[in-house]
Amino acid sequence: MAFQYILELFGTFFFAVSGALAMQDKDQDWFSAGFTGFITAIGGGSLRDILLGSYPLVWVKDINFLYSILVGVVVAIVFHRNIIRFRKTFLLFDTLGISFFTILGVEKAIGLGVRPEIAAIMGMFTAVMGGVIRDTLTNELPVIFRKEIYATACLTGAIIYLILDLQTPLERNYNLVISISAIILIRLFSVKYKLSLPGFRK
Amino acid sequence: MAFQYILELFGTFFFAVSGALAMQDKDQDWFSAGFTGFITAIGGGSLRDILLGSYPLVWVKDINFLYSILVGVVVAIVFHRNIIRFRKTFLLFDTLGISFFTILGVEKAIGLGVRPEIAAIMGMFTAVMGGVIRDTLTNELPVIFRKEIYATACLTGAIIYLILDLQTPLERNYNLVISISAIILIRLFSVKYKLSLPGFRK
Amino acid sequence: MAFQYILELFGTFFFAVSGALAMQDKDQDWFSAGFTGFITAIGGGSLRDILLGSYPLVWVKDINFLYSILVGVVVAIVFHRNIIRFRKTFLLFDTLGISFFTILGVEKAIGLGVRPEIAAIMGMFTAVMGGVIRDTLTNELPVIFRKEIYATACLTGAIIYLILDLQTPLERNYNLVISISAIILIRLFSVKYKLSLPGFRK
Repeated sequence: MAFQYILELFGTFFFAVSGALAMQDKDQDWFSAGFTGFITAIGGGSLRDILLGSYPLVWVKDINFLYSILVGVVVAIVFHRNIIRFRKTFLLFDTLGISFFTILGVEKAIGLGVRPEIAAIMGMFTAVMGGVIRDTLTNELPVIFRKEIYATACLTGAIIYLILDLQTPLERNYNLVISISAIILIRLFSVKYKLSLPGFRK
Repeated sequence: MAFQYILELFGTFFFAVSGALAMQDKDQDWFSAGFTGFITAIGGGSLRDILLGSYPLVWVKDINFLYSILVGVVVAIVFHRNIIRFRKTFLLFDTLGISFFTILGVEKAIGLGVRPEIAAIMGMFTAVMGGVIRDTLTNELPVIFRKEIYATACLTGAIIYLILDLQTPLERNYNLVISISAIILIRLFSVKYKLSLPGFRK
Repeated sequence: MAFQYILELFGTFFFAVSGALAMQDKDQDWFSAGFTGFITAIGGGSLRDILLGSYPLVWVKDINFLYSILVGVVVAIVFHRNIIRFRKTFLLFDTLGISFFTILGVEKAIGLGVRPEIAAIMGMFTAVMGGVIRDTLTNELPVIFRKEIYATACLTGAIIYLILDLQTPLERNYNLVISISAIILIRLFSVKYKLSLPGFRK
């Protein structure tokens, strides 16, 4: 439990960093960076809880989430030149963020009694919708509509978690490791080998 | 009741088709098509229920809505070349969708005890906001801001329904036929004769 | 109380005027003007109440808010040529709107028992998010991302209100005057002297 809580705060921190950095090419002030960092960090989880009617929202109740975001925004502002140089580090942290938030979102939804199919969607929303709201507000094409596999990795991981949870006697901790690893592997492989799904191609 | 439920699932199916098809010119993968189909189908009703504080959301509670969406997305993907050719069929189905969802939204809002003026707005939101959210996410100018009469037709139909419901002894079934027909006629006439409302013209 | 209620309706009216006017360069019809006026007027307060789970929403419960919006939209449509000429009047009214809504939002959030840090964010959201939603829907860069100090003025005023409220024995009425004045002064000074915060500059 304590470990999960620390991971959740860490994920929030990372999303705040990535959200604030999204402003770096935009000739924007620090406040805008803080605003987008905040939206990115709380957007996905807030949307999940609003759709499920689960109140109070986590960050409204527990002030540590706000502090994680503030630290993340400050880190982004102070170190933004350095962070850029480490694109691979950035990718890794984002991937850790979405993988963990997906499974956390699935567990929260299941805990509120919704069906597994809906829980899988809620898990994916938790991971990706903060970035989608950020991109929509800043007039970018949302991250989920870009070429590489992103939300699909989250959805796949959510489904793996649910199958293992509901159809096998596997212990929760092993399930966490397997499903989170699946998301990380799918995401990193798709970036490395430039994999994308089939679609409406011209 | 059973008939209304079937129509509601059918409307959900159609909005999923139209939402998925919105991706066809965008060089996007099937997942993106599914995502926009999903948002279009559940967006308007979800926004209405969130604004009214009416939980649980319909699609969270009843899995048949998710299945309707999945079928709609698959149909859009498999038949997208054929559907394009039948632009008139597409327009007709969209019009059926918005007309029925408007009145359904009005009835739901009235059932939750809000005033008729608010119920009319909620009816219109149910019909058009899924498309608005879809267009906003994909960086298009939302459908309600385009030239032909669209949301205004829904609002007019909602007001007709409410006047007949509250001011006359007309039976509900007749009222449904009249108000839904009004929306369909206003919409189709405005498309056929390129009618638009007056406004801030240059 | 009666005075606050009148100010709230007046603020709603003004946001409706400003929202409807945002359509004037867009070759749009009166319905679109009404729609954006409505969204601008109710967006910030609705988002605050949805995030806090505070139901029913003010405008769903009290029809006078809808009437204030309708009057505002009609005023915008009828007088839009004249209003444009008075850019300074427009700026002043917008500034009065955001300053009052910020403090009103803070007080509402505090009344619902949230922590001061969260209440400050909710106050700022109440003031600026209606405009952000309006700008996002109409494909503009949201007002908070433009050069001059805007949301930062609201956040600063909210923090001043909370410090005076929680740390001093100052009476509420004096606090309202001080914190609202602070927002107005910061905003007007930043526009007059073209002040902006430091940031990611090229």
